[in-house]
Amino acid sequence: MGGVVLGRLREAGLILPVPPNPAANYVPVMRSGGLLFVAGQTPVVDGSPRFVGIVGVDVSLEEAQAAAQLCALNLLAQLHGTAGVDLDAVRCLRIGGFVRCRDDFVQQPLVVNGASDLLVMALGERGYHARTAVGTNALPRGVPVEVDGMFAVD
Amino acid sequence: MGGVVLGRLREAGLILPVPPNPAANYVPVMRSGGLLFVAGQTPVVDGSPRFVGIVGVDVSLEEAQAAAQLCALNLLAQLHGTAGVDLDAVRCLRIGGFVRCRDDFVQQPLVVNGASDLLVMALGERGYHARTAVGTNALPRGVPVEVDGMFAVD
Amino acid sequence: MGGVVLGRLREAGLILPVPPNPAANYVPVMRSGGLLFVAGQTPVVDGSPRFVGIVGVDVSLEEAQAAAQLCALNLLAQLHGTAGVDLDAVRCLRIGGFVRCRDDFVQQPLVVNGASDLLVMALGERGYHARTAVGTNALPRGVPVEVDGMFAVD
Repeated sequence: MGGVVLGRLREAGLILPVPPNPAANYVPVMRSGGLLFVAGQTPVVDGSPRFVGIVGVDVSLEEAQAAAQLCALNLLAQLHGTAGVDLDAVRCLRIGGFVRCRDDFVQQPLVVNGASDLLVMALGERGYHARTAVGTNALPRGVPVEVDGMFAVD
Repeated sequence: MGGVVLGRLREAGLILPVPPNPAANYVPVMRSGGLLFVAGQTPVVDGSPRFVGIVGVDVSLEEAQAAAQLCALNLLAQLHGTAGVDLDAVRCLRIGGFVRCRDDFVQQPLVVNGASDLLVMALGERGYHARTAVGTNALPRGVPVEVDGMFAVD
Repeated sequence: MGGVVLGRLREAGLILPVPPNPAANYVPVMRSGGLLFVAGQTPVVDGSPRFVGIVGVDVSLEEAQAAAQLCALNLLAQLHGTAGVDLDAVRCLRIGGFVRCRDDFVQQPLVVNGASDLLVMALGERGYHARTAVGTNALPRGVPVEVDGMFAVD
């Protein structure tokens, strides 16, 4: 189940993390009909943030892109590991990316590309999505990026 | 209509506020098929914000959680009072929580729990939802929290 | 196609901009069933931001409303020009507005009215929508407003 997508990740040297537990009283994936809503994901592996800080200050653009990629991997991990969704049957509809930054930072789109590129690489044609990328002054646990997603399943 | 959910709220000593009027040229609830989109709600009662300030500065964590709970009550009030939706037939799919805070604040999830816990208490199993919680530097009328929601109705 | 809506815009002295290209590896409009997700739009014309700065500092309330109107025009331009959707058959379900501002700015709803009013003017009864308006400290390219949207098509 999800063998094509998981194979693409493997070829890229990436593995799906164990899906992070929700930080509170909610669920990581909610399904309604063919729509799947995935809770905002942070760059966490094994319960610990891999990136902490402010993009452009403590976190470089490259690190922020890697953090956004990890957020996207966690979106897929939630779909696959928590909700048992077949990743080969999933289409990404929309992601929302929040980039922690100073007031004069303007490269939010480049940061969130880390997530978009991963989704297109892993899901192929089904990975193209609409997107909103904005700045924010603060995020949970001090992470530099948070990304949520809406998906459709056949 | 909505007797079970309204009963749970009553037992908890809570009542649905009169649903706040939209602050501008939009509607509080928009329906499309079985999906319901509820506009961002602030901790307002009778037209006045009950909480104003920055979480962690002027507003304590406990107050911010109470403010988030009030946002969630207003989500339900909009569904029930404005849109005439049967709360017993409603499922929460997703909420988005914005927490007004300083740059180093990291407890957005704990704040937004005030909303998540209320929804699960009131709607029971149907209250579990996906969620995105982020920080922001500023919110309308200076409130500490804003929460929007997507729901499904049978 | 879209003649009624385009006529209303023309009468108001407005034209749809050429839809901006996505700033990165995503698509401007994603469709799933009857739902349309439009990526976050900024006040850009011909590839250049028409407004840059912080609302209440470098950008007046009136300019910010004009910027929000331009974001909404770009939402419609993406639907019409990029996705080939008949604007006369479109209903707006929800918009999300992000207003770049200082920590004490509280008029996000007035700013986002620039977008809401345009949508109601152009789409008529089908233009009413649910809405979330929040502040943010930073946006792509330094623009003062970003607005995304969800629409339904018959």
